[in-house]
Amino acid sequence: MSTDPADLTARLVRCPSVTPEEGGAISLLEEALAAAGFDCIRADRGEVSNLIARWGDKGHARTFGFNGHTDVVPVGDPADWSAEPFGAELRDGWMYGRGTTDMKSGVAAFVAAAIDFVTETPPEGAILITVTGDEEGDAADGTRAILDRMAAEGEAMTVCLVGEPTCPETFGDMIKIGRRGSMSAHIVASGVQGHTAYPHRAKNPVPAMARLADRLASHTLDEGSEHFDPSTLAVTTIDTGNPATNVIPAACRMTVNLRFNDLHSSEALTRWMKSEAARVTEETGIEFAMTVRVSGESFLTPPGELSALIANAVQAETGVTPELSTSGGTSDARFIRAHCPVVEFGLVGQTMHQVDERVEVAQIGQLKSVYSRILKDWFA
Amino acid sequence: MSTDPADLTARLVRCPSVTPEEGGAISLLEEALAAAGFDCIRADRGEVSNLIARWGDKGHARTFGFNGHTDVVPVGDPADWSAEPFGAELRDGWMYGRGTTDMKSGVAAFVAAAIDFVTETPPEGAILITVTGDEEGDAADGTRAILDRMAAEGEAMTVCLVGEPTCPETFGDMIKIGRRGSMSAHIVASGVQGHTAYPHRAKNPVPAMARLADRLASHTLDEGSEHFDPSTLAVTTIDTGNPATNVIPAACRMTVNLRFNDLHSSEALTRWMKSEAARVTEETGIEFAMTVRVSGESFLTPPGELSALIANAVQAETGVTPELSTSGGTSDARFIRAHCPVVEFGLVGQTMHQVDERVEVAQIGQLKSVYSRILKDWFA
Ligand SMILES: [Zn+2]
Ligand SMILES: [Zn+2]
Repeated sequence: MSTDPADLTARLVRCPSVTPEEGGAISLLEEALAAAGFDCIRADRGEVSNLIARWGDKGHARTFGFNGHTDVVPVGDPADWSAEPFGAELRDGWMYGRGTTDMKSGVAAFVAAAIDFVTETPPEGAILITVTGDEEGDAADGTRAILDRMAAEGEAMTVCLVGEPTCPETFGDMIKIGRRGSMSAHIVASGVQGHTAYPHRAKNPVPAMARLADRLASHTLDEGSEHFDPSTLAVTTIDTGNPATNVIPAACRMTVNLRFNDLHSSEALTRWMKSEAARVTEETGIEFAMTVRVSGESFLTPPGELSALIANAVQAETGVTPELSTSGGTSDARFIRAHCPVVEFGLVGQTMHQVDERVEVAQIGQLKSVYSRILKDWFA
Repeated sequence: MSTDPADLTARLVRCPSVTPEEGGAISLLEEALAAAGFDCIRADRGEVSNLIARWGDKGHARTFGFNGHTDVVPVGDPADWSAEPFGAELRDGWMYGRGTTDMKSGVAAFVAAAIDFVTETPPEGAILITVTGDEEGDAADGTRAILDRMAAEGEAMTVCLVGEPTCPETFGDMIKIGRRGSMSAHIVASGVQGHTAYPHRAKNPVPAMARLADRLASHTLDEGSEHFDPSTLAVTTIDTGNPATNVIPAACRMTVNLRFNDLHSSEALTRWMKSEAARVTEETGIEFAMTVRVSGESFLTPPGELSALIANAVQAETGVTPELSTSGGTSDARFIRAHCPVVEFGLVGQTMHQVDERVEVAQIGQLKSVYSRILKDWFA
């Protein structure tokens, strides 16, 4: 009897697992996987619930890994929805609810595929399923906690497939083989307050910050690399909060957000920003303080056996030839990259994080078929 | 019997005339001047009380004008004061209270000087005393209303002396023969909001605003002119208010304040700022909207007979040789400049607008003596 991934998706959607609430979702998966013979470890940390479930020998050299998350973003005002946000209502072939695309359907599809695969054709090797409850939050106690616990327990993955929605338009049209890194710098410029009629007695931080902003934003970081779009820097805000037109303010704040490809590291970019700030300090006498927050370095799993195997499976099941891409935001693959080669494939993500988030029910089954074929081919 | 300017100052200080409240101050002066034979017109406009008091023939070709204000800035928290803010308390030779230096003492000194002068040595000519209740506010219904009413009534001044505190350190050390102009521009940059991971779908107004800020602030407006310090431009605030580090904002605001000398007009400076904005628009595609508020054009009464006469009187009464200066903020002289030559002389302004504002009582008498000598010499 095969496992129904749509039914499992619906049961997961009915768990109100807004980060960091587990909402019953991790426990539901733990039960289902344990029943199918998986060894389960709850790798909870802080407020977050995480699951590591292994079928086969611990640390087997041929271990296929899956990664996903059951936490979801808030629903906003439920009155804006045409369906109950945690109801998994079926309507015209679609299932409605928060997390239906991002990414309870993806988790349900790989869990169902893995259970059926080990039941029907027990492979030579192991399958390691990792599911976190903290991907949409600050991710400090999510997949990082899972990887820490895996290291402590001697668990390992040979390769990993993340089941995030990756397809921009049509199911099957995109596999992510990398992601750009992401970081933010919060910069404070400090001067000396004064009256605009006597500017020589003050030191104005605002034009100095403006110069730094212009320099940073005008700089071409790169023209892109073999597999990546060009790196970008966005000045997201400059704020002073000075309501008095006759007062030169004492301080000014700025935030910049960088999305960077494999030609850069967050460390090198921080060095560059600090040297630009130092140059403006030399020119203006205004001091800058910088706090950097790195969401993740860039990662790339260069096109090769793994991506070819996945692309073939997608093509075979959907008839669509997927593009190998590194576009878009960040995902937990940024943590897994340090552990093993990682690739991402999942559904069309168009309604993720939106009101009336929904998934075409038939596509959940198709996604399970793709994952099943990937397992079959990889262990063949 | 001579008029005591310290007593008149104290009575004015006891009038709580925070802009736009008249507080009894204008009426008190009207009564005193009418009793001495001045023809009084109340040139009230809007919420503001203003006084025009003339001794001698209307429109006489030889009319000496005085200008001052009785309105004061708020006292803040009275608990911060060591004296009652409207009490005119005498302590160790000082009088305490809001307006003691800025500028009820100046008004009292020229009113006392004028009354005694016309009583003791009636001149060939006229004296026109103008006092407003709206100098510290937005000045829309203050000296401008007085000048409008003067034009309507056929009143005129040949020259005008404004009694604002002008001395930075020592009584007698500075006469103002001009002031820089002042204006502010409020600029809004408009782009298209978006996600920092997809900056090509957005148009970021922040770096464009930063470039405009740097260009405006880096430009040398001039090196100063014969009688003026260099013009200055201060970027007083840039604000975006975008809390999300992954969002490119739709708009960004900036305010710049300019203090400009006689080499510029507000119109030419506005044209220049708009052309710089247009250049950044051409480079970035970001549009700017600009609202300009002009507080006043610069004015200069070139050193000559009037300033020499006043400087001589100051030197004779105080033993100090005054500097002829155009420094500092704006005053109502910016309106009078269009009517007749105008010069400013008054007390030391150090405690103006501060807690425990105070005046040395003896200096009020000295100031009256200076004004008396100016009248005597001018009509000689
Ligand atoms: Zn997700
Ligand atoms: Zn004043």
